[in-house]
Amino acid sequence: MRLDVVTIFPEYLEPLNVSLVGKARARGQLNVHVHDLRRWTHDRHHTVDDTPYGGGPGMVMKTEPWGEALDDILADGYETGSSAPALVVPTPSGRPFTQKLAVELSERPWLVFTPARYEGIDRRVIDEYATRIPVYEVSIGDYVLAGGEAAVLVVTEAVARLLPGVLGNVESHRDDSFAPGAMANLLEGPVYTKPPAWRGRDIPEVLLSGHHGRIARWRRDEALKRTTAHRPDLIERCEPTAFDRKDRETLFVLGWAPDPDGEPYGRFWRRTRDVEE
Amino acid sequence: MRLDVVTIFPEYLEPLNVSLVGKARARGQLNVHVHDLRRWTHDRHHTVDDTPYGGGPGMVMKTEPWGEALDDILADGYETGSSAPALVVPTPSGRPFTQKLAVELSERPWLVFTPARYEGIDRRVIDEYATRIPVYEVSIGDYVLAGGEAAVLVVTEAVARLLPGVLGNVESHRDDSFAPGAMANLLEGPVYTKPPAWRGRDIPEVLLSGHHGRIARWRRDEALKRTTAHRPDLIERCEPTAFDRKDRETLFVLGWAPDPDGEPYGRFWRRTRDVEE
Repeated sequence: MRLDVVTIFPEYLEPLNVSLVGKARARGQLNVHVHDLRRWTHDRHHTVDDTPYGGGPGMVMKTEPWGEALDDILADGYETGSSAPALVVPTPSGRPFTQKLAVELSERPWLVFTPARYEGIDRRVIDEYATRIPVYEVSIGDYVLAGGEAAVLVVTEAVARLLPGVLGNVESHRDDSFAPGAMANLLEGPVYTKPPAWRGRDIPEVLLSGHHGRIARWRRDEALKRTTAHRPDLIERCEPTAFDRKDRETLFVLGWAPDPDGEPYGRFWRRTRDVEE
Repeated sequence: MRLDVVTIFPEYLEPLNVSLVGKARARGQLNVHVHDLRRWTHDRHHTVDDTPYGGGPGMVMKTEPWGEALDDILADGYETGSSAPALVVPTPSGRPFTQKLAVELSERPWLVFTPARYEGIDRRVIDEYATRIPVYEVSIGDYVLAGGEAAVLVVTEAVARLLPGVLGNVESHRDDSFAPGAMANLLEGPVYTKPPAWRGRDIPEVLLSGHHGRIARWRRDEALKRTTAHRPDLIERCEPTAFDRKDRETLFVLGWAPDPDGEPYGRFWRRTRDVEE
């Protein structure tokens, strides 16, 4: 996979040399190019921003440097054999970046990231390239950053670990929070390693039982506990058929029950009043 | 504000020297310490992980190095005058990190980050420190990373820009997506700067009108368009009293109407069938 990043803070992308992404580059699984947007300015101050039309605080990134940068990168990519580029625009007003979208992006051969600073990029840049190539405007969460560079690191890491051969053990995807399969929509519960006692705290006995069925059940119950506590929205989104009889017992004890009006089966809701009053 | 980060990839935290966070450090507004967790190991391989109790793929980070590291950092902080530390634990099974939580963390004097790798940290570490200091287990979004370091960059940047004096112009918080006030729960619409025409694309005429009321109205309508398209969940969460008569007209044209069963006023829902059929 080829990745290009255009930014006014190239040094912010240093983590792309480290750990998982750095190793994937060293092995040739990722071909990363970080570009300084100011290379495509022509005034002595290397200006990339100007005041917003219509007034208001902050500055807006100008069309020209972005247009020249993207034209050059796309042309160079095609010349060197890259194909099917897509633009990834990190912005708080984008669609939420999710594991599903990470999977979709990991199947593309070439991603070009345009992390912005200030109030964002002049809209015409996005409109222009959207007529030529797919554009993903993505938000990594409901908070405000100083620029899109941190989001590039997040998206790159989430995508890179899904590429074939990048993670050592394929199995370690299986139990991830948000991974497809039995744990889809459930958060992972606690994990433990040696020693069995630390500062007066013992690990849960079941984990020493050697009984795979009981351990799997315990882990599933812990995942249900954690998810109901931290992310009730995920439980509400689950298809009710995703819960077996034991799950339903656990959920009931935790204060959750199926919606009696649900068709054909009710999704689970917190029985707040029954439990707390 | 004091920040400590304990990690096995200190070089991943290089962006804390760059841009907004780097400048805040240079001005003494942020006091940042990045620690290599392996400093607190005692074997020649500097082991920080071991196999999980109960079996399964992946490795779990061990209690001892984390316990020794956190004890030393907390003791050193108290000695040098820091107070009221809180632990920030990035994990996909945490509570969602939001702008509201960024504000809460920005009001604390001292944050200690524990970004994990592998399957996470032995649970007893979190349980132990939760008896002494506040612990925030946070997830920056519904995707899986290779480790918590990218999340530390995200949280640090979101928090740092809220500190007094860090952003130049206080006003530029005002129109942010997710900022409190009139735009709460709405995404920002498009922005434009000079030149007025670029590659055959003109800026919207209203922005040249000089009419502040019409410009504000246009921006609000664009924010409503963008939010209904990318984040219908945000519109559904809005108090209906947040929408004025003009907002309601725009929402209606976009295919949204108040829930007739809402009490005392209905929240807005997409009238999918009416519009699409």
